[in-house]
Amino acid sequence: MQNIQDYVRSTAAAAKQAFYALSNASTAQKNAALLHMAELIKQHRADILAANAQDMEQAAAKGLDAAMLDRLKLTENTIDSMCEGLRQIAALPDPVGEMDEFRLRPNGLQIGKMRVPLGVIGIIYESRPNVTVDAAALCLKSGNACILRGGSEAFRSNTTIAGLITRALRENGLPTDAVRLIENTDRESVGAMLQSPELIDVIIPRGGKSLVARIAAEARVPVIKHLDGICHVYIDQAADTGKALAVAYNAKTSRDGTCNTMETLLVHTARAQEILPALAGQYAQAEKPVELRGCTRTLEILPHIQAATEEDWETEYLGPVLSVKIVDNLAEAITHINTHGSHHTDAIITESYTDAQIFLRAVDSASVMVNASTRFADGFEYGLGAEIGISTDKIHVRGPVGLHGLTSQKWVVLGNGQIR
Amino acid sequence: MQNIQDYVRSTAAAAKQAFYALSNASTAQKNAALLHMAELIKQHRADILAANAQDMEQAAAKGLDAAMLDRLKLTENTIDSMCEGLRQIAALPDPVGEMDEFRLRPNGLQIGKMRVPLGVIGIIYESRPNVTVDAAALCLKSGNACILRGGSEAFRSNTTIAGLITRALRENGLPTDAVRLIENTDRESVGAMLQSPELIDVIIPRGGKSLVARIAAEARVPVIKHLDGICHVYIDQAADTGKALAVAYNAKTSRDGTCNTMETLLVHTARAQEILPALAGQYAQAEKPVELRGCTRTLEILPHIQAATEEDWETEYLGPVLSVKIVDNLAEAITHINTHGSHHTDAIITESYTDAQIFLRAVDSASVMVNASTRFADGFEYGLGAEIGISTDKIHVRGPVGLHGLTSQKWVVLGNGQIR
Repeated sequence: MQNIQDYVRSTAAAAKQAFYALSNASTAQKNAALLHMAELIKQHRADILAANAQDMEQAAAKGLDAAMLDRLKLTENTIDSMCEGLRQIAALPDPVGEMDEFRLRPNGLQIGKMRVPLGVIGIIYESRPNVTVDAAALCLKSGNACILRGGSEAFRSNTTIAGLITRALRENGLPTDAVRLIENTDRESVGAMLQSPELIDVIIPRGGKSLVARIAAEARVPVIKHLDGICHVYIDQAADTGKALAVAYNAKTSRDGTCNTMETLLVHTARAQEILPALAGQYAQAEKPVELRGCTRTLEILPHIQAATEEDWETEYLGPVLSVKIVDNLAEAITHINTHGSHHTDAIITESYTDAQIFLRAVDSASVMVNASTRFADGFEYGLGAEIGISTDKIHVRGPVGLHGLTSQKWVVLGNGQIR
Repeated sequence: MQNIQDYVRSTAAAAKQAFYALSNASTAQKNAALLHMAELIKQHRADILAANAQDMEQAAAKGLDAAMLDRLKLTENTIDSMCEGLRQIAALPDPVGEMDEFRLRPNGLQIGKMRVPLGVIGIIYESRPNVTVDAAALCLKSGNACILRGGSEAFRSNTTIAGLITRALRENGLPTDAVRLIENTDRESVGAMLQSPELIDVIIPRGGKSLVARIAAEARVPVIKHLDGICHVYIDQAADTGKALAVAYNAKTSRDGTCNTMETLLVHTARAQEILPALAGQYAQAEKPVELRGCTRTLEILPHIQAATEEDWETEYLGPVLSVKIVDNLAEAITHINTHGSHHTDAIITESYTDAQIFLRAVDSASVMVNASTRFADGFEYGLGAEIGISTDKIHVRGPVGLHGLTSQKWVVLGNGQIR
């Protein structure tokens, strides 16, 4: 199937040229294109919904599960959200060209850094047609070209939306190759993207863990990815009871299927007798009652719950289940989190300044929190304005990825004829 | 050979534990260990030189080429440099724990970033035993654990040095697993490192292009790497003649075998007649005369030089050879650099403010310079104090990589009981 390889590679090569052309685009031009996309999507709402209805019909006929269908479905509301998202991204400051850290060297050179796009970003995603708009908008605003490879189930929706994006680019004098939808949904087109480090600068997969893990394993292009969200709340010896109960309840129940939901609760042994029965009562009365799985010591306090296995400490339930462990001290909590967690988001509840400082420094996670719900770990809550995803990687960018995460910094050296 | 795999994996796992333990180490402790390493290396200078002499003898017997032997050889001077390097790294500010960008969100959360180590860094290198010291010191100072895989040719030198590093760690209360030399020089030990993303957070290869390219192709661990250095100087229409001649001469001749040496000279057509004959005269009189290879138009001005082929525009000569091309304007120069260069370091010589601004923004290289020699692209010249290498990647870090390049930032969220 040499044809698919060639098609993907020529698309990426065109995107690379568009990326260079984008470096001449002004912020005003990029913002105008984003607002125009919002206008066009609003005007062609009926076309998009019709295309999506066809996708839905075919997906249902193929027997896709309810969750997948839910993610595929577009409504008047989701289309409004897409348009609102575009307007918000247009309103964000342009990160490209920001300069800082300039120092004067002894030889008179002024050396500092300029924020620049990464180049060509490949987005590989499933179902959600709104990713087509979000990803294109974030990449464009940050000066990157992108190639979008959506799933076959959303083909008509994505094609319709991509057509409007192309039109907005063209009508605002921007290169239409800056956003290219891969119009081939064979697996081989993904493979071709993953094997093209000379044409694609970074791949961002959006989807379930199995998709992301497969892409990370196969890619020869750098990947910014999100794997597990095994988040912890640790109730310290010095915790305020009210904050402990409120945060531990919220972190599990406000939404139980998100990556920033708490999956394991750690409680200092001195507070377990007081806290756990009260919390268990709250969880039992939640809209979706939470099933608890406890360590041996927890079972002594809550004898009616199930025992946790070793596997529980490394499981992302993505549902109303919570593992509970009593620890002897802060150090044990930190070791448990670093060993069994997924380095995503972890919180301590404490009134102790020193315990908070130790936790913040020693927990090796993308987000570390004091007296706040892990559920806050997302780009909008952090003030990024928008996010393309949450990174569980350690290099380049950790946690919610906004416009800055789609850029890096190059060195700028200003001289007046210096030689070495 | 399951044994090698197990050995590498258990070494990396021990390093991971040491990395967590390092988060409790103070800056003073790390600095004391670095200064102690310098002391020990000074004291055991004779042992190191004796081990190195054995390595040299064996390498010569095996027929290693002169360049390889040169990189392998330690002298009184190189040992002094190692010690001086350790003292310089001890004197640098500790990047770990730096906090910034804190913002107050409407809900009262304070959200900002803390600079943190990457975790376990794998260094894969050839010959140069000084990398053992440099890499260990930079990783330790930046709070990372490291596992070092040197070449078989330097085995005795590396083992002797690593023993002193271990002793300095132990005698300063730091975990000795924070720096581990892989005492196996089979290829399979490299393979085991490259396939362990759950144990090693990043790999930094140090060596020739073929080693680096092979590692990048095989690695499932993120890699920070240096490939080609195809650097350009562009003499703009608005160039000052004196600066143009001085920089173009220096960028090629001050050292011709380094990655930041100019490999292609681009000259604006309006200046070629004036500049090229003068430069050619200088190059001919250099200590090592520079062989020029020109485009068709260059040959009209310098009829006695060889014609450049398409391949010349993408060749890193690493020697006294220079390709020369006349361009019609700034845009053509930028397109040539982005298309044929290696995104390493490129300079414009100009007195035009606008041309400088356009060049700085549009050239997609790790370092972009105005009126300065490309030879300045290195960590010491940039004021980093030390460098572990120069990155030609686009994500995480570009150009010279110092202590900051060995760290990333995590999010810190400070609340008082907020729930979502």
